[in-house]
Amino acid sequence: MVNQVQRVEDTWRTCSKSDSSGASNSGCESSKESSRSSTPVLDTDRTDRLRDKMRRRTESGDHWFSLEFFPPRTASGAVNLISRFDRMGSGGPLFIDVTWHPAGDPGSDKETSSMMIASTAVNYCGLESILHLTCCNQTKEKITGYLSKAKRLGLKNIMALRGDPMGADWEEEEAGFNYATDLVKHIRCEFDDYFDICVAGYPTGHPEAESYDEDLRHLKEKVDAGADFIITQLFFRADTFLKFVRDCRAIGITCPILPGIFPIQGYQSLRQLVKLSKLEVPEEIMQVIEPIKDNDAAIRNYGIEQAVGMCRVLLESGEVPGLHFYTLNREVATMEVLRQLGLWIEDPRRTLPWAVSAHPKRKVEDVRPIFWASRPKSYIYRTQDWDDFPNGRWGNSSSPAFGELNDYYLFYLKSKSSKDALLKMWGEELTSEQSVYEVFTSYITAQPNVAGHKVMCLPWNDDPLAPETNLLKDELDKVNRRGVLTINSQPSINGKPSSDPIVGWGPPGGYVFQKAYLEFFTSSENVTALLKVLKKYEPRVNYHIVNVHGQNTTNAHDMQPNAVTWGIFPGREIVQPTVVDPVSFLYWKDEAFALWIEQWAKLYEDESPSRMIIKYIHDNYFLVNLVDNDFPLDNCLWQVIDDMFELLDNPPEEQPADKNQAMRSKELSVEL
Amino acid sequence: MVNQVQRVEDTWRTCSKSDSSGASNSGCESSKESSRSSTPVLDTDRTDRLRDKMRRRTESGDHWFSLEFFPPRTASGAVNLISRFDRMGSGGPLFIDVTWHPAGDPGSDKETSSMMIASTAVNYCGLESILHLTCCNQTKEKITGYLSKAKRLGLKNIMALRGDPMGADWEEEEAGFNYATDLVKHIRCEFDDYFDICVAGYPTGHPEAESYDEDLRHLKEKVDAGADFIITQLFFRADTFLKFVRDCRAIGITCPILPGIFPIQGYQSLRQLVKLSKLEVPEEIMQVIEPIKDNDAAIRNYGIEQAVGMCRVLLESGEVPGLHFYTLNREVATMEVLRQLGLWIEDPRRTLPWAVSAHPKRKVEDVRPIFWASRPKSYIYRTQDWDDFPNGRWGNSSSPAFGELNDYYLFYLKSKSSKDALLKMWGEELTSEQSVYEVFTSYITAQPNVAGHKVMCLPWNDDPLAPETNLLKDELDKVNRRGVLTINSQPSINGKPSSDPIVGWGPPGGYVFQKAYLEFFTSSENVTALLKVLKKYEPRVNYHIVNVHGQNTTNAHDMQPNAVTWGIFPGREIVQPTVVDPVSFLYWKDEAFALWIEQWAKLYEDESPSRMIIKYIHDNYFLVNLVDNDFPLDNCLWQVIDDMFELLDNPPEEQPADKNQAMRSKELSVEL
Repeated sequence: MVNQVQRVEDTWRTCSKSDSSGASNSGCESSKESSRSSTPVLDTDRTDRLRDKMRRRTESGDHWFSLEFFPPRTASGAVNLISRFDRMGSGGPLFIDVTWHPAGDPGSDKETSSMMIASTAVNYCGLESILHLTCCNQTKEKITGYLSKAKRLGLKNIMALRGDPMGADWEEEEAGFNYATDLVKHIRCEFDDYFDICVAGYPTGHPEAESYDEDLRHLKEKVDAGADFIITQLFFRADTFLKFVRDCRAIGITCPILPGIFPIQGYQSLRQLVKLSKLEVPEEIMQVIEPIKDNDAAIRNYGIEQAVGMCRVLLESGEVPGLHFYTLNREVATMEVLRQLGLWIEDPRRTLPWAVSAHPKRKVEDVRPIFWASRPKSYIYRTQDWDDFPNGRWGNSSSPAFGELNDYYLFYLKSKSSKDALLKMWGEELTSEQSVYEVFTSYITAQPNVAGHKVMCLPWNDDPLAPETNLLKDELDKVNRRGVLTINSQPSINGKPSSDPIVGWGPPGGYVFQKAYLEFFTSSENVTALLKVLKKYEPRVNYHIVNVHGQNTTNAHDMQPNAVTWGIFPGREIVQPTVVDPVSFLYWKDEAFALWIEQWAKLYEDESPSRMIIKYIHDNYFLVNLVDNDFPLDNCLWQVIDDMFELLDNPPEEQPADKNQAMRSKELSVEL
Repeated sequence: MVNQVQRVEDTWRTCSKSDSSGASNSGCESSKESSRSSTPVLDTDRTDRLRDKMRRRTESGDHWFSLEFFPPRTASGAVNLISRFDRMGSGGPLFIDVTWHPAGDPGSDKETSSMMIASTAVNYCGLESILHLTCCNQTKEKITGYLSKAKRLGLKNIMALRGDPMGADWEEEEAGFNYATDLVKHIRCEFDDYFDICVAGYPTGHPEAESYDEDLRHLKEKVDAGADFIITQLFFRADTFLKFVRDCRAIGITCPILPGIFPIQGYQSLRQLVKLSKLEVPEEIMQVIEPIKDNDAAIRNYGIEQAVGMCRVLLESGEVPGLHFYTLNREVATMEVLRQLGLWIEDPRRTLPWAVSAHPKRKVEDVRPIFWASRPKSYIYRTQDWDDFPNGRWGNSSSPAFGELNDYYLFYLKSKSSKDALLKMWGEELTSEQSVYEVFTSYITAQPNVAGHKVMCLPWNDDPLAPETNLLKDELDKVNRRGVLTINSQPSINGKPSSDPIVGWGPPGGYVFQKAYLEFFTSSENVTALLKVLKKYEPRVNYHIVNVHGQNTTNAHDMQPNAVTWGIFPGREIVQPTVVDPVSFLYWKDEAFALWIEQWAKLYEDESPSRMIIKYIHDNYFLVNLVDNDFPLDNCLWQVIDDMFELLDNPPEEQPADKNQAMRSKELSVEL
């Protein structure tokens, strides 16, 4: 059910506490005080820092790419940008960076601030991220405050910049931040080695520098002050960069230098950028562009071709371990360049079935409840205050302490679609429960609804059906038509290779398994029949059935989770990333029911029939989850639902012999 | 590789933290302070106490049995008794009890003391155990000391007895322990509800009591003082017991009353017992026994028949939830009675592939390294100081802190066989390494050795081959003949039902899995060839190869364990009870090599050729373990060994094209 993906290799590598331990060479000292610990990670344990990842990939000659974004102006722009993070993150960037936008209250909690966008990339999209920070005209206290906040939010990398002085009459301040070097020193002074620090390099010299050589010396100062690597300003010729690297090496700069690549995407944006950065566009490029300046497609195609050609020269030079792209928050050109270079990971391997958060506190996390499979950002949000995360097993979670729902309408949990678009998809006017069923069916089948609109999302699923769920499409279609409103499911899997393109995850050479899972809303009439049917499936099928008021029926253990996804890998312990946890289910229940009201009912006028229909479902339906424990056999959950329909269609006549059954069914109704 | 077994049901039940929690009925309070914990067990969490197990089995009408033993007189008697615990424990007693032997220093650390025998039953044999304790002529301090020690050793149940006064001139002491009631009160006063307390009942009245009614009143006092259940003195007629129960109930004794069953096993032992207990043997029994008093077999057969008949009456009365057997430390009669009653569990289900310790501190333990599979008591001994035990996963055990080997010759780690028997099995005189290989081969094949003796054990395996290992017999035979001296192995299993009679374990409805494992000693010449061969099997096969000096070669992670046995069960998280842990292997290595010297070499004279041969092997051979990670495929480890032999038999001629390989092989030799 999860679409997000990312590079497997680094995450699996960092699962091991220490690569350099000599423990295999005999002579283990025994120490009574330290027993084993399944969560051996300290806050200061930073074996997965960006500079180490760079070093490892440089050593193995494994070229990488990275992506630069700027913060959006509006909340809806933020929602779009975060979707873009997910899409572009799937191609496997080593990191992304977010520029500092001094005019946009960059360190605030606003959903459009640089700080919040970078935090979201780390925490919710699982992307290694660099936050830009400019120091010009700032007090030390202010800067320290920003850095403390960044650290608290899980950000681990800073791009230290001077920034553009405000006004033309800028002068050096005695004790202030006058150059990026001052900021680098300050970070190292106040935060020791906590952050990885990046600084900017100017292949043609900084526009304000006295000379190219003078500028190189400044760069050397920044590196000597503690910067870990350099990203350059954009340039248009490979030679420009390669000379710059040679000159840097000549004066003793040894850290990685990443070329900033700018695929030309349009005439206006090019003009604006060169103006801002005071760069000159080479004559040979202008000669191509000028004649086609009104043809966006032609310019973009040229830009792609030009960037690909330049990148090839750079990569073949042996001087370039990775490429940094100025995306201008657009996808197409950068992705195409990366595809042509073979750097875009078309079929990325997943570390776990769900996207791993990049917050260092969550580094060991490898188990989650299945319920939030389609709402991983909500899960991360509601568990952000946890001090430790399930690792290896979920355990007996007597009190998982999920965050309250009152903030759940935060921007990154909102739908990407506008109210108008939602109304088109989910119905301008609902006339019956049946019309709700049809919305679900349209979503499942990807067929237009009665008004001719495709249903691209549901309150519980912000994206179209995942490829894995698509395998179940026919069955899902059939049951949704009859009011079994499915919101989450997975098929059973009995040992597919971990490299399987649809259901695979984890390191190579392993096998993945799943128990079949189905979660849906349905009427209390259906539930009464379902409970009768489920007796036939004991103990094969575990169920939890709950309504909005918390009336709860289950045949599973009260506290013990059921592992429904697991993997077996060479040389490792078992990994079981997804569980059905009975306690978490009751927290999820609140969220799942609230979505009916918050996302759907509120599209309609108060007291309107449409709103009343959704309200009725919210108040009266049950949320059901079913697990088929017998994963080596054919999934029996569809048969369970079929049997339920069969019982509803052909209720047994009440005969003396059936008296007991009638009694039981009465008890069940009471129980519910 | 594990022969020991025990009742699955209770152990699995107690894995759940709380059966009575109402968490499934909505309204979970969220509490920020408590996150999940994978080891939720406190020392005071005693949901698995004996009285609760009795109550549950009484409620479900599931009759049980229990077994009484007395402490042995000699150390070799202790070794034999502990083997008996393992054998009789496999039939599924609810508990065993160990009598208090005042003349035998019962509270000491001697291997024959009541305290140590009961502790061994709990800790090493995994048996729920009751320690008897008599209070007559003891100070309160002494008694409190015994109880504290018992608690510290993991004992949880006490049979509180007065004991026989020393000398005929016994008088009540003012502030002393005069009756068992005083002891019960003292236990409850000093240890609150920690211990489950059992007291003795006398179906025909205590011999010293003024009257039967007076004795019943004393019993009522003992129960009112805090006893949890009653075990009666032996008796010969069912009616005697059933009347006694009626009389107890009539005066308000409501706790369980377990009949003490004594299968008559011989004329002398019967006479002695009735004399000690001042009982009268009914005329109808004496009439049968007197004529056959010199025919032990006939008397035993009669005893079995008589006991079975009486037990049937008791069980059918509905008054008897379980039967308590006075075994006199013998097996045959009691086991036969239990078999005829259908109470002996012929094919007990295993909770885990290894026998679970009954020490409350180890309650959550569910992962162990595979290395000690045939020496579980040694593993328990060497980890007895751990504060917590692996639960769910082994984790990154940077320092597992195993106990030192210097105490390893403790009696419960000794071989059950005498030096003479060992010499017969392992060779009065060894002439070459080959003669050692033949000992291994005889053990594997269960064929007599050259001297005509069966090899029933090896220093690393105190019992004949386990049924599971028997599946591999032909392959094991073949490789041992050629000096691949196997000491541990398991076949691969790809999802057999948990009810499988040979490889199954855990609750019903599950599936168990294994990766193939092979562990052996072999010469450095073989290892050099093996390492070359193993390159072909990367990354499918993980290996660790180490010699006595700790020279260690591996292709596995330094710290991460490899799960080699796991199970998937309905409604549960994954269970992975056995791992290959690289750090633990180096501790096991010390033990595995030491066994060559301590158990085998020392059988021979100093400087004798036999001892020198074993010493040579100890000093020069390597200990190798191999895991085939690809559990769904056919086990490739035999092919690995075959390839090694093939390479040794037909070494490639050194040709120019092979230069690299020759170089590599040279490096490998150096590496080793």
